[in-house]
Amino acid sequence: MSYQVAVLAGDGIGPEVMAEARKVLKAVEERFSLDIEYSEYDVGGAAIDHHGCPLPESTLKGCEEADAILFGSVGGPKWEHLPPNDQPERGALLPLRGHFELFCNMRPAKLHVGLEHMSPLRSDISAQGFDVLCVRELTGGIYFGKPKGRQGEGEQEEAFDTMRYSRREVRRIAKIAFEAARGRRKKVTSVDKANVLACSVLWREVVEEVAKEFPDVALEHIYIDNATMQLLRRPFDFDVMLCSNLFGDIISDEIAMLTGSMGLLSSVSLNSDGFGLYEPAGGSAPDIAGQGIANPIAQILSAALLLRHSLKEEAAAKAIEDAVAKALSDGYLTGELLPADQRDKAKSTREMGDYIAQAV
Amino acid sequence: MSYQVAVLAGDGIGPEVMAEARKVLKAVEERFSLDIEYSEYDVGGAAIDHHGCPLPESTLKGCEEADAILFGSVGGPKWEHLPPNDQPERGALLPLRGHFELFCNMRPAKLHVGLEHMSPLRSDISAQGFDVLCVRELTGGIYFGKPKGRQGEGEQEEAFDTMRYSRREVRRIAKIAFEAARGRRKKVTSVDKANVLACSVLWREVVEEVAKEFPDVALEHIYIDNATMQLLRRPFDFDVMLCSNLFGDIISDEIAMLTGSMGLLSSVSLNSDGFGLYEPAGGSAPDIAGQGIANPIAQILSAALLLRHSLKEEAAAKAIEDAVAKALSDGYLTGELLPADQRDKAKSTREMGDYIAQAV
Ligand SMILES: CC(C)[C@H](C(=O)O)[C@@H](O)C(=O)O
Ligand SMILES: CC(C)[C@H](C(=O)O)[C@@H](O)C(=O)O
Repeated sequence: MSYQVAVLAGDGIGPEVMAEARKVLKAVEERFSLDIEYSEYDVGGAAIDHHGCPLPESTLKGCEEADAILFGSVGGPKWEHLPPNDQPERGALLPLRGHFELFCNMRPAKLHVGLEHMSPLRSDISAQGFDVLCVRELTGGIYFGKPKGRQGEGEQEEAFDTMRYSRREVRRIAKIAFEAARGRRKKVTSVDKANVLACSVLWREVVEEVAKEFPDVALEHIYIDNATMQLLRRPFDFDVMLCSNLFGDIISDEIAMLTGSMGLLSSVSLNSDGFGLYEPAGGSAPDIAGQGIANPIAQILSAALLLRHSLKEEAAAKAIEDAVAKALSDGYLTGELLPADQRDKAKSTREMGDYIAQAV
Repeated sequence: MSYQVAVLAGDGIGPEVMAEARKVLKAVEERFSLDIEYSEYDVGGAAIDHHGCPLPESTLKGCEEADAILFGSVGGPKWEHLPPNDQPERGALLPLRGHFELFCNMRPAKLHVGLEHMSPLRSDISAQGFDVLCVRELTGGIYFGKPKGRQGEGEQEEAFDTMRYSRREVRRIAKIAFEAARGRRKKVTSVDKANVLACSVLWREVVEEVAKEFPDVALEHIYIDNATMQLLRRPFDFDVMLCSNLFGDIISDEIAMLTGSMGLLSSVSLNSDGFGLYEPAGGSAPDIAGQGIANPIAQILSAALLLRHSLKEEAAAKAIEDAVAKALSDGYLTGELLPADQRDKAKSTREMGDYIAQAV
């Protein structure tokens, strides 16, 4: 069995953390005798510089031929003056999600034992830990709903966006949330704004229907405003959070920040054929790019998710995750994870990659 | 000069905290020889029980005859089975906002010295304090945009909501944010999602235009997902946050929770004539209603805001705020603000009201 992976390293720290992910992949390929072929393509700012647009036709074509996309990160100050549609993040991620119908985004976020001090939460709250999986609908809602645009003149000129959800769209993402909850703590919290949005009322109805097929999983509904608050007070009470596209954007970032260690978080965006895009949650971090100090773990864990969800190589995925866990518990850490007075113990991007590849 | 105030105490702790606000208002009326007449009306769950709907015609009429509305809080488990449109919160607040065109919501939130331990933030972050004013557009956006509804059948049935903003709507709320920033730390952070929403692109354009009229005020733009994160890490970097209706709902609640003392926070919703609705931020808290332990400060500060913004009685407003500050700095606190081992020092709702009225 031979696999094809499209590698889109992108901008900022993307290329340097991707190099470490490749190193770790190489180690699992050897250990598990996998045959993975990689093709590299430009994306984001790098693609704007070389091809004039953030998602060139050649990149899209390369992705179409692959079994999965391993994505780095895109964006940086160099391209921030561009109109929103042409910017690296928006101009690459949204079309990729739309084109491959990657409707299911999953972002696991947990507070690692020993890294509680990284969380911006009060110590008595973070001491209780948390482990939340955000399941976000990624190809519907107000991101892609039509009509979207402008009309009118002068002060009456107005802009409009349409939030739109069909029963089918809600059902397929809800099912994934409930299935995921089954393998975890068996609780789904559905986030909506049913006291204001027609879409949320439909969302709630369908989620209730799906819940009936999962009698072993508990369901609760929460308004987005209240969810934002309760996550601060009692993050440990949440297991799977099921969100529409816009609310998932907000909630998944809030949870990521609550861990305080974005360099450890990865995400998967899947379609119904198991094709997926795998990326770190943290962004391109242009301020530290090229210094060899970025944490490659999020990118390495993205590779593990790719092995699990798109290539169905569970053992290889697990081997990477175990190796990462070992690095963390051995106190083998990049600088941003260390208290200020221990920064001299910081490992470089490359040292981290070597250690994890070794552990595999 | 004689003023008319419509009093809508509502449900849960509403009536008991309202009684204390009235007590404090009585004290300032005496001290500043004000002539305020109060008329009480049912609203929310109480109105559903007595009139069959959360905002009866008689209540709306009474509000129309008044100079301002002093609002308590609405909602509770008793009415949660009702369809969203008929529930106390949605069914009372949204029509009041729409009817009186209360487009400008302002929610000040600060971490009081001595109450840092209440914040869910890590102690080194909360030690730096913060003082944020959320200025939220309240009658536009996806809350009121048309069309809103459902169409289709079976799995294809879909729901839709429309987010809509005109230049005029953005301009009038942006101006208020910049004016408010002038009286504060001279910084406006405009929250949007311009990488996805057409409304946000227009929003940004108009905010930039307004900023030109306020060269002394700094402007920055931030995406809603990033705003949710940065507030956790560096809340002290924000001064005025300017938000659309939906994003303001989320951000203002997040900030409220970051103070950890919702019982101290009040808000004002104004129209262009200075008519306003004044309410505590905290909700009806049905779990502690009727026990005489609710914190009346948010309601009392709502009365101060009413004096300031609708009645233009700045001295009286200030007198109330000073009296509240005195109570807090004297350590005169309700139970929820005290560490667990000092709960025996807790003051009752009535004692708080008496003390503050006395201090006035
Ligand atoms: C770049 C942007 C369009 C995107 C989104 O809003 O979905 C990003 O914030 C994300 O969450 O991946
Ligand atoms: C009750 C609800 C409709 C309302 C809103 O979303 O505006 C509330 O959350 C608020 O912020 O006042």
